[in-house]
Amino acid sequence: MSPTKVTNQTAAVLHGARDVRIEQRSVWPPQAHEAQVAVVQTGLCGSDLHYYAHGRNGDFVIQSPLVLGHEAAGVVTAVGSSVTHLVPGQRVALEVGIMCQNCKFCTLGRYNLCKNMRFCSSAKTFPHLDGTLQETMNHPAHILHPLPDDVSFEQGALIEPLAVLVHAARRANLSSGQTVLVFGVGAIGLLACSIAQSIGASRVVAIDINQARLDFAKQEGFATDVYCLPAVDKPKTTEEQLRRAKTSAHDALKAFGEADGFDVVFECTGAEPCIQMGIHAAAVGGRMMLVGMGQGNVTIPLATAAVREVDIQGTFRYANAYPEAIELLASGKLQNAEKLVTHRFSLQDAARAFELLSKGKDEDGNIVLKVMVGQQ
Amino acid sequence: MSPTKVTNQTAAVLHGARDVRIEQRSVWPPQAHEAQVAVVQTGLCGSDLHYYAHGRNGDFVIQSPLVLGHEAAGVVTAVGSSVTHLVPGQRVALEVGIMCQNCKFCTLGRYNLCKNMRFCSSAKTFPHLDGTLQETMNHPAHILHPLPDDVSFEQGALIEPLAVLVHAARRANLSSGQTVLVFGVGAIGLLACSIAQSIGASRVVAIDINQARLDFAKQEGFATDVYCLPAVDKPKTTEEQLRRAKTSAHDALKAFGEADGFDVVFECTGAEPCIQMGIHAAAVGGRMMLVGMGQGNVTIPLATAAVREVDIQGTFRYANAYPEAIELLASGKLQNAEKLVTHRFSLQDAARAFELLSKGKDEDGNIVLKVMVGQQ
Amino acid sequence: MSPTKVTNQTAAVLHGARDVRIEQRSVWPPQAHEAQVAVVQTGLCGSDLHYYAHGRNGDFVIQSPLVLGHEAAGVVTAVGSSVTHLVPGQRVALEVGIMCQNCKFCTLGRYNLCKNMRFCSSAKTFPHLDGTLQETMNHPAHILHPLPDDVSFEQGALIEPLAVLVHAARRANLSSGQTVLVFGVGAIGLLACSIAQSIGASRVVAIDINQARLDFAKQEGFATDVYCLPAVDKPKTTEEQLRRAKTSAHDALKAFGEADGFDVVFECTGAEPCIQMGIHAAAVGGRMMLVGMGQGNVTIPLATAAVREVDIQGTFRYANAYPEAIELLASGKLQNAEKLVTHRFSLQDAARAFELLSKGKDEDGNIVLKVMVGQQ
Amino acid sequence: MSPTKVTNQTAAVLHGARDVRIEQRSVWPPQAHEAQVAVVQTGLCGSDLHYYAHGRNGDFVIQSPLVLGHEAAGVVTAVGSSVTHLVPGQRVALEVGIMCQNCKFCTLGRYNLCKNMRFCSSAKTFPHLDGTLQETMNHPAHILHPLPDDVSFEQGALIEPLAVLVHAARRANLSSGQTVLVFGVGAIGLLACSIAQSIGASRVVAIDINQARLDFAKQEGFATDVYCLPAVDKPKTTEEQLRRAKTSAHDALKAFGEADGFDVVFECTGAEPCIQMGIHAAAVGGRMMLVGMGQGNVTIPLATAAVREVDIQGTFRYANAYPEAIELLASGKLQNAEKLVTHRFSLQDAARAFELLSKGKDEDGNIVLKVMVGQQ
Repeated sequence: MSPTKVTNQTAAVLHGARDVRIEQRSVWPPQAHEAQVAVVQTGLCGSDLHYYAHGRNGDFVIQSPLVLGHEAAGVVTAVGSSVTHLVPGQRVALEVGIMCQNCKFCTLGRYNLCKNMRFCSSAKTFPHLDGTLQETMNHPAHILHPLPDDVSFEQGALIEPLAVLVHAARRANLSSGQTVLVFGVGAIGLLACSIAQSIGASRVVAIDINQARLDFAKQEGFATDVYCLPAVDKPKTTEEQLRRAKTSAHDALKAFGEADGFDVVFECTGAEPCIQMGIHAAAVGGRMMLVGMGQGNVTIPLATAAVREVDIQGTFRYANAYPEAIELLASGKLQNAEKLVTHRFSLQDAARAFELLSKGKDEDGNIVLKVMVGQQ
Repeated sequence: MSPTKVTNQTAAVLHGARDVRIEQRSVWPPQAHEAQVAVVQTGLCGSDLHYYAHGRNGDFVIQSPLVLGHEAAGVVTAVGSSVTHLVPGQRVALEVGIMCQNCKFCTLGRYNLCKNMRFCSSAKTFPHLDGTLQETMNHPAHILHPLPDDVSFEQGALIEPLAVLVHAARRANLSSGQTVLVFGVGAIGLLACSIAQSIGASRVVAIDINQARLDFAKQEGFATDVYCLPAVDKPKTTEEQLRRAKTSAHDALKAFGEADGFDVVFECTGAEPCIQMGIHAAAVGGRMMLVGMGQGNVTIPLATAAVREVDIQGTFRYANAYPEAIELLASGKLQNAEKLVTHRFSLQDAARAFELLSKGKDEDGNIVLKVMVGQQ
Repeated sequence: MSPTKVTNQTAAVLHGARDVRIEQRSVWPPQAHEAQVAVVQTGLCGSDLHYYAHGRNGDFVIQSPLVLGHEAAGVVTAVGSSVTHLVPGQRVALEVGIMCQNCKFCTLGRYNLCKNMRFCSSAKTFPHLDGTLQETMNHPAHILHPLPDDVSFEQGALIEPLAVLVHAARRANLSSGQTVLVFGVGAIGLLACSIAQSIGASRVVAIDINQARLDFAKQEGFATDVYCLPAVDKPKTTEEQLRRAKTSAHDALKAFGEADGFDVVFECTGAEPCIQMGIHAAAVGGRMMLVGMGQGNVTIPLATAAVREVDIQGTFRYANAYPEAIELLASGKLQNAEKLVTHRFSLQDAARAFELLSKGKDEDGNIVLKVMVGQQ
Repeated sequence: MSPTKVTNQTAAVLHGARDVRIEQRSVWPPQAHEAQVAVVQTGLCGSDLHYYAHGRNGDFVIQSPLVLGHEAAGVVTAVGSSVTHLVPGQRVALEVGIMCQNCKFCTLGRYNLCKNMRFCSSAKTFPHLDGTLQETMNHPAHILHPLPDDVSFEQGALIEPLAVLVHAARRANLSSGQTVLVFGVGAIGLLACSIAQSIGASRVVAIDINQARLDFAKQEGFATDVYCLPAVDKPKTTEEQLRRAKTSAHDALKAFGEADGFDVVFECTGAEPCIQMGIHAAAVGGRMMLVGMGQGNVTIPLATAAVREVDIQGTFRYANAYPEAIELLASGKLQNAEKLVTHRFSLQDAARAFELLSKGKDEDGNIVLKVMVGQQ
């Protein structure tokens, strides 16, 4: 069942900031525990964009040419000798974080914290592991997740960001009947809204600084109510910013008619003022989930959180979340998820896709949410 | 705001087996912490039916005339002097279990286990507390739950059984993406299906011995697939029954295409063969929730549960579940809940309502699920 | 059983900053649900000291004469007509936060977050409720906890601070086999060590800036290893302080030989540098518990917490924690708890007790931990 | 670092019921991910005894010669090429269940439920994997757990049964301040007592039918109080047995002075009457943990469990429990654990060890608890 020889394929390879080159590469037959996958769709993510724009993502600098992309779905083309749960022709979502399966975190079921994690498309480890912006790749079979027939490849490429929110919702202990506030209605924030709704949240509302995105969130049914933060001058001091955050939070709660605050806040912007607002906007005994990644050090009203027992929890990628994300998509409960895909490009045009993503709006003035790169 | 004098009202009072009398009764002004409520709708429950048919419910025998009914919604007509969160005219669901608020279970938030619980319409404590099959009653204000405008009185009367399932789902740790099997598609079983769907279960299926009820469950969207247990002769020995249960479970799993079993089983019949089947039908690491009450002693394949870590958990009434049940109804996520109400009677006709409920089918051969008694 | 007349008693009453007066006061017979208690011992707490020294505690200013004290044990002298679980002569610990028993938090079992909480000795609500620095007081019977014979009155007065840590340990999900780091070895920090040990932590270590206190912690078996933070100049910028906190944390981890950090960090100082250090000193997937109350706004390395899934959780007083605290003391597992009591005063000398507490050292240079005021 | 050649060693091999033969066997160099271990001590377990006495353990029949033993500690003698956390000379406890690391249960951290588990010394899978009653064996390095210096080899061989209880205690959510009842004071029951004490249970008591064992349990400090079930005629009917179980439970509760029952019951006998008693002896809202394995089908007072929300939970082996078990032993909190080892034999005398274990008493009338086989 395994291919017996090396084949050729095309990859979009990042050589440095804004330098993506389309190259021909060899692909070896899969090893015993691997499958070979023809990647059909890859969604672009903010961290991909950081690498594209700057050749780095925070502290992680590319040290050799790197294939980006980690939100992907494809078709199995060959399987290694010990693979039993996959067959060629099978449609799959790729989980691209390769955990060691041996460390304490792996055996505890928290493999997102694996000490030896190697993540395709990331420059954190060296040699880098290539991502999914290529035609064909070998991948450990146990982290290829079969897709039901009624989940499209584009939906399949949304499973990775959806898994981020499944994980965040679990950590938040998000449950039916709770009220939810989401900061930031980019792709991740919108998926936070979707997950909250699918789990039976009694109310899901959103805050952003971009009215067009908020309109989209409301029109497409992601949030029932939205609140646009007014544009203001930059505060002169940290104290002023903190005072403003408190006032803004109370204004927003008043506008939403939720004086007691929200049970769960998903902070998906990483912006300091939003984190500050979120703590004031959480209900007594509630939770503040940090989904968006921002600057390292943040000044927060910590006593306000502490005496009200508002827990502050970060959330890093996901563990054991793909199956639930796939189930959610297959069940039809996330009908609006596919509306996230606003633009599509071929692999040859990967560089153009990144340029569009970096602008945030297309030539016609439409908002850019999730950009797909793949077979057209 | 309080009425200053005693008023008259009508009540349906059980004096003994099948002896319901319509009587005039006085109602005093509410005490300081009480509100007076005009009951608008009461749903009849299996335990009401036991009292009606036998003058007892298991060990609890009526020792004096008793007003039945504990699934109810109404309108506040007066409030006591220290009540601040209710006003006359307000629509409410009645939570009729009056907890002591002082014992260990009350302070722990598990007040359904309160040692001093007095439950309206139950003969467990003496003097008995009357239930809701009457026009007007005084009730502690803190367990009257305001109803949103878009929740009807009939829906309001469904909140009590819904709360049973909210509680069961919480104890089961039921979460998004799980597979759910329900035994018994009477009112409680159908609500179990509804709750599971609203929380994002990936699959909800049902088993019963009544094809007409199963057809209803499927047609109305409660379960996606159903399985009718074939009629069989009574087994001669316990061993034979246990063997059959195992075989039946495997047949059902095969029919459902879920060879590995279901993550959560809600047993809503109380029947020994269903409990036995349920243990075999639960997935490794899954849960068997006992919602239906049956005979005291049951022979079960305990080792099969133990080595597969299938937890067996009973569930008794509810605590802190009304708000979530109300939110679920208000959110529109339980659209099919109201379809449970198949028959309606006036308070004057309460006896006829019980008779119909005891038959299970009406004159036209339609199934009887939830019977409402109240204003027509 | 109830006293039928008003009696006289002595109270230590705070009239303003550093103005404690010994006064004679009347005490009425207990109401139906109350018991009358002769207070035997009261431990002084940091918040008492704030009121004593400044006439206020943060935002809460005394608006009328106030009796301080909320860590107390005594003897029941009379009970109200509906009290059944207490008899005169019974020894009890007083839980002095009077919850409403009706709000959402009370019914959920999180009554420490009760919206209508009235806390004896606090100026948050007005009229203020007096605390335990008096000879006799009436108190709701359901929050008087019987003391076993082998728990002394001084131990009984330690139950309140112990309950703070029982609550914190529960919220931390602190369990057997975990490693624990405690910042600050005042009374609260030492009790954090004790609780951690009693629950089976595999290692309990402590950090402070006071070598004498650390020596005490180690000699008395509270912590197995201690680390004294070196005295340094005040950092010039927030950035410098954050850099130092990171370095200090790594130095401490190295000294402790725990390169991977600690599973649970109890921060009992409220000091910003300790909070910052704590986040770096927590293990991946660990917890940072904020037990000490400090300034409102704090700059923290939030991204460091978030991507390592270090949860940051405040902890406010306690709920349902007295029984466990009493059990722990009665079981003998907290043998060193009583060593916390370093100084003792009579009620007449309450002002002197506060003065000593404010100094931190007595005339002989001994450290001051817990100061008891009561019967000598 | 790997041995380059095949060596010889001695093994105790079971060829059929009561047919243990001492044989010479070759041992290959360890593979890349394995280490070679010289087994120093092996504790014998009830399942070993079943195989020894009957050539089978329940449904699992030996189909080829099998080396028993799965509670073991030893010394690393060589490591495979990719092993980094172990060196020759290192003392280790062997975790002998080899999980697949790929299935749903493994990735979730519940690897005890692994679908592809191969357990050394069990005949469940074929070809069988040999156990630890041999001088030397190769084993996957990631499930060899380093032993601290102060944990002896005999203690190391107790880690496996201790892990069973660590796992059971976690599933029971056993926490500080709870009351615990243990049925059966064989080795597993005594370790249940030890764990409960080390976690801070407020009271630990035990029930058995063997007064000598109960005396041992009390004298050595495992249980504070014990209750010996009186010898009775076999009941004639299931109903009679159930009635007796209820009466016996109430007698025992009375004797213990715990009328409300115990928070957690560890059932370590597998005997039907004890399971029945345990349900009556558990407190409202408590837990009944099934640790002992018994007959498949059991008649239990299920309604009594259900309406009191007494959860019935099995517990199968352990996952991620060795580290905590090792910490507990190293911390000195389980001082009495080593007292479990009542008899010691050399590997050559393995058959005699089994014979003694099957008798339960030695020639001098001393009770037999844990029998060790290994280096003398």
